[in-house]
Amino acid sequence: MKPVKIGLLGLGTVGGGTATVLLRNAEEISRRVGCRIEIIHAAALGIDSQTILDPAKVTLCEDGNAVVTNPDVDIVVELIGGYTFAKDMVMKAIENGKHVVTANKALIAVHGSEIFKAAQEKGVVVAYEAAIAGGIPIVKAMREGLAANKIQWLAGIINGTGNFILTEMRDKGRDFADVLAEAQALGYAEADPTFDVEGIDAAHKLTILASLAFGIDLQFDKTFTEGISKITQDDVCYAEELGYRIKHLGIARRTEKGVEMRVHPTLIPEKRLIANVDGVMNAVLVQADAVGPTLYYGAGAGAEPTASAVVADIIDIARSMNVKAEDKVALLGYQPESIEDTPVLAQNEFETSYYLRMLAEDRPGVLADITRLFADKGISIEAVIQKEPQEGQTCVSLILLSSKVVEKNMDEALVQIEALDSIQGSVTKIRMEHLG
Amino acid sequence: MKPVKIGLLGLGTVGGGTATVLLRNAEEISRRVGCRIEIIHAAALGIDSQTILDPAKVTLCEDGNAVVTNPDVDIVVELIGGYTFAKDMVMKAIENGKHVVTANKALIAVHGSEIFKAAQEKGVVVAYEAAIAGGIPIVKAMREGLAANKIQWLAGIINGTGNFILTEMRDKGRDFADVLAEAQALGYAEADPTFDVEGIDAAHKLTILASLAFGIDLQFDKTFTEGISKITQDDVCYAEELGYRIKHLGIARRTEKGVEMRVHPTLIPEKRLIANVDGVMNAVLVQADAVGPTLYYGAGAGAEPTASAVVADIIDIARSMNVKAEDKVALLGYQPESIEDTPVLAQNEFETSYYLRMLAEDRPGVLADITRLFADKGISIEAVIQKEPQEGQTCVSLILLSSKVVEKNMDEALVQIEALDSIQGSVTKIRMEHLG
Repeated sequence: MKPVKIGLLGLGTVGGGTATVLLRNAEEISRRVGCRIEIIHAAALGIDSQTILDPAKVTLCEDGNAVVTNPDVDIVVELIGGYTFAKDMVMKAIENGKHVVTANKALIAVHGSEIFKAAQEKGVVVAYEAAIAGGIPIVKAMREGLAANKIQWLAGIINGTGNFILTEMRDKGRDFADVLAEAQALGYAEADPTFDVEGIDAAHKLTILASLAFGIDLQFDKTFTEGISKITQDDVCYAEELGYRIKHLGIARRTEKGVEMRVHPTLIPEKRLIANVDGVMNAVLVQADAVGPTLYYGAGAGAEPTASAVVADIIDIARSMNVKAEDKVALLGYQPESIEDTPVLAQNEFETSYYLRMLAEDRPGVLADITRLFADKGISIEAVIQKEPQEGQTCVSLILLSSKVVEKNMDEALVQIEALDSIQGSVTKIRMEHLG
Repeated sequence: MKPVKIGLLGLGTVGGGTATVLLRNAEEISRRVGCRIEIIHAAALGIDSQTILDPAKVTLCEDGNAVVTNPDVDIVVELIGGYTFAKDMVMKAIENGKHVVTANKALIAVHGSEIFKAAQEKGVVVAYEAAIAGGIPIVKAMREGLAANKIQWLAGIINGTGNFILTEMRDKGRDFADVLAEAQALGYAEADPTFDVEGIDAAHKLTILASLAFGIDLQFDKTFTEGISKITQDDVCYAEELGYRIKHLGIARRTEKGVEMRVHPTLIPEKRLIANVDGVMNAVLVQADAVGPTLYYGAGAGAEPTASAVVADIIDIARSMNVKAEDKVALLGYQPESIEDTPVLAQNEFETSYYLRMLAEDRPGVLADITRLFADKGISIEAVIQKEPQEGQTCVSLILLSSKVVEKNMDEALVQIEALDSIQGSVTKIRMEHLG
């Protein structure tokens, strides 16, 4: 069989990793695929300084346009990142009849529908396993491995930086800002950490996972996003005391009213396997009607873990070079005409349990007032702990765990509670999921 | 697209689950596949008493031959179990040009090479996702998701009954025999529990996993198998004290000398995620050169979890009904002509660490004698704990953890140690893996 020819856009961390893996494992890969996979053209800024590709075998240039229009290229691998130039390159590659492999979660989450439509019209594949949870083959699991199931919900630790920060806060009693500074120094977190710690990166990935799970359009703008920058050491400790860990989760759930898509810090029982996924590692827990819970764990970032997913996509395409587009797995795992227009629920419609922390005066009747206001909104309180006032203070910290309730009702109750004379300042509210 | 037609052999636990899932999720599945999947013919003993399939829509019979020769059937789903009749049916289905889906690990582990050869010649698929770890899509992960990697090793909890027993022994301080009796009463373990507790079932699965990992022939007869029936409550407790848990693992490892394939009780660090996989759940940890460690967790048995994998295979085949055999993923993930004849190592060539427990006289010099004999064989001792003699006894229990060593050297050292006057009886030896 003749070799499959790759055009590579970008030779940064993931691009370099992809080239390295394709070269190092060329023999193992051709044992699997039955043909060789060759990088024939690569473009990156400052490409003259690269040392991975052999200039005698690979055309090197700075202009991506030369790659996506090269008639010999079968698959364009986009590892540039960002929305603008990357999108332009992907659309041009499709226009030129190339299959596309990308690790670009932002691009797929925001422009996926447009890109997939163009690909379907041209009969080419756009593969994006590397866009979610790095090297974990979660796209394949969702589209194929679990295809017999109705997916009920999924919950994922899908941002390594955020998980590293929360793990350090818990294990070492460190503060958010302190760990973030270290993560930046170690290169886990970007100089501008907003994408990671405010949950935008996780929301990109969750948007794609929700589409794969339920067969709905990609709707990044409807994904609720809350970061971890307000999580305090106190909350981490109180959660622990109650048998929970705080993880930054992306959650997608199918309910009778619609689909929930939300990224936020979440208390989860420490006994759950996913509660023990620490450091920069990622994991996705999927609850499905036939198989029950399954979990997928691995490195969510890094040169070679991400390259593992990029090259898996390349191999998938190489294995089916002679297969017609209509005989391949649909890009979101559902036939395009079966993508449903299921409503996406707004934040105040979410249904979940809550961890609540507030400063209250230390006198009889205060707890009674609070629990009555909750009861009026149909909210049960399942656990309460009270912390002794600190030296020289009169207020105690009250920590409450609620039953499952619609967020609107919880917020209304909290407005009334915050208005009580006996309550100081605002109530800290962290969502809680049992994942059982 | 015209419907894909299924002939079902066996309507027991998994057969019933498969029919149920196909019927209940028919709409979701056709949203994914783009056509309907219909059971048109089913055979099982005593089929008249079945209540899942509608006799007005499905031809029901007791004779599997009618199913595998039915010209309208596209895919034969073999859920009979066993080697004899099941093999006959699978071979006849292939002969008649049918694709085959099976959950039969024994059949694939023992007769897989012959079956795959026949399938290749006929250009049909034999799919067996359900044969390993029930509903966990591990075959897909190995053949496709991790296809960019050279797999270094894998370690799996791949028998739920064994894991249930070890979990109960640890959590509740119960004895092996006691838990086994309960597992039998609960229906987890067969009346004859040999296949589960002596590791034969796990060895079937490990044999297949090793072939998927390294591209080698299926060689069940070369898989080393040791069960859990000799694990005592003492060993579970001492392991715990040293920071380890005992799990019954199937391990496949590529070494410079060949491939290790072994199923045995194993001490693993309690910090590893896989050490926290409890009860009847399964998990497979795969270490690969590019992605690093990834773990796949879920239900390893049961009607619907296993059906989830069976139906995923059916969907794979349905999605590619028009694709030629040579354009599909090879049955073991490697091209048939690339299957290598890598030597399988014998037990005495395994390289691993050990947990050792022995009864020794409580006097100076005994430990020195023992450690000298280990040192003579190049074995380092990394931890020692000594347990006070029980009331009225003079001997103490010595527990040692060794460094990594070739099993032959360990066994030679143990012969010499058992010959010491100061050592009573034989030494308990349990293998230990750091999985790091």
